[in-house]
Amino acid sequence: MSGTLWGIGIGPGDPDLLTVKAIRLLGALPVLAWPAPLDGDGMARTIASPHIPAGKIEIPIRLSFRPERDDTDQAYGNAAETIAGHLDAGRDVGVLCEGDPLFFGSFIYVLDRLRQRFPVQVVPGISSPMAAAAMAVKPLSLLDDAVAIIPATRNDEQIRAMLEPADSAVIMKVGRHLSRVKALLADMGLLDGAVAVERATLADQRILPLAEISSLSYFSLILVHK
Amino acid sequence: MSGTLWGIGIGPGDPDLLTVKAIRLLGALPVLAWPAPLDGDGMARTIASPHIPAGKIEIPIRLSFRPERDDTDQAYGNAAETIAGHLDAGRDVGVLCEGDPLFFGSFIYVLDRLRQRFPVQVVPGISSPMAAAAMAVKPLSLLDDAVAIIPATRNDEQIRAMLEPADSAVIMKVGRHLSRVKALLADMGLLDGAVAVERATLADQRILPLAEISSLSYFSLILVHK
Repeated sequence: MSGTLWGIGIGPGDPDLLTVKAIRLLGALPVLAWPAPLDGDGMARTIASPHIPAGKIEIPIRLSFRPERDDTDQAYGNAAETIAGHLDAGRDVGVLCEGDPLFFGSFIYVLDRLRQRFPVQVVPGISSPMAAAAMAVKPLSLLDDAVAIIPATRNDEQIRAMLEPADSAVIMKVGRHLSRVKALLADMGLLDGAVAVERATLADQRILPLAEISSLSYFSLILVHK
Repeated sequence: MSGTLWGIGIGPGDPDLLTVKAIRLLGALPVLAWPAPLDGDGMARTIASPHIPAGKIEIPIRLSFRPERDDTDQAYGNAAETIAGHLDAGRDVGVLCEGDPLFFGSFIYVLDRLRQRFPVQVVPGISSPMAAAAMAVKPLSLLDDAVAIIPATRNDEQIRAMLEPADSAVIMKVGRHLSRVKALLADMGLLDGAVAVERATLADQRILPLAEISSLSYFSLILVHK
């Protein structure tokens, strides 16, 4: 009988924001895979590390910081084959994922390659919009509010089309798109009150009025409320 | 010195989806408040119950199923005063919240009344879109995807304006709006592939193709992907 593929959300950064279920699986599963840079453990493995006992079989899935599509395909193709070998041998495999596995989660690359062949289970995780809102103590939505979640990598027209009908918004993956996004929000009258949150729940987190900042890392987002 | 007001996300239903941080606070805080129906414990208290030791001061915040605005104001006004009394006396108070406290969370009613007077901390929780996606094993977003989160209580024009520019969507609070939302999605060519998830992560959860169902409870949502 084949093993089960588990996608495990490990939350935004604070190891105390793992769920009981995720911690139990990190202890129980014989094989763990995790995305990582070309060198070192990567954020997912680092966040989860207090909860990973010694003696696991571990599969790093290594990619450069902004990989080309082909590199992503190759890294996840190789990882999926390695994972499939363990599943075929009856060993359950957990794939660690920052935040939530199915919300901008790299687990989806593994899932797409293996879901037709193996049983799959997913453990949801605390995702970055909720983590950032909690750290900033800034409500995302209430009652009939509509919320737009928009990667800053989209063009101005697409971002505007999402923002206009929404009551609040989370602009993700800001990084080098900061000045363009700031200009767009200012043009829409939404700059005042917008808050930038960088590395939410980590020791070096920053929370600042968007109007006041001029640089922001990739692990950042903007909370907008009308 | 006054106590701290804590908003504590306790997730979608499965008690194993509480975070380590939430569980620690449920054990440590002397006072816990929770939303509830007119009679009984309510879902938040029920989900958290395995993690609540005996001997707490507990403050139920009681409301009918679909309260009038005035009733909500009165119930949360009264609860906020009771909570303020404990905070003034130096006792930390945790307010339990299904899902995440700041994502459609009733904690916001307490927060709005007390944030000027007391220190506030928020523990994010697993929210229903991520829980539903995990149970259905249906990705919400990847790469540059824009996600719309839309209460079904909005009118057709507003729902359509949010759906059109989005790559995926979560339609919340469906309940009695089911037939109208189905008709709208069918008109937009989005009915096929849409999945309804009711009571995600609870023992009686249901996951079904939206096209096949004719009733859905309030604790339900629809996952749409283009």
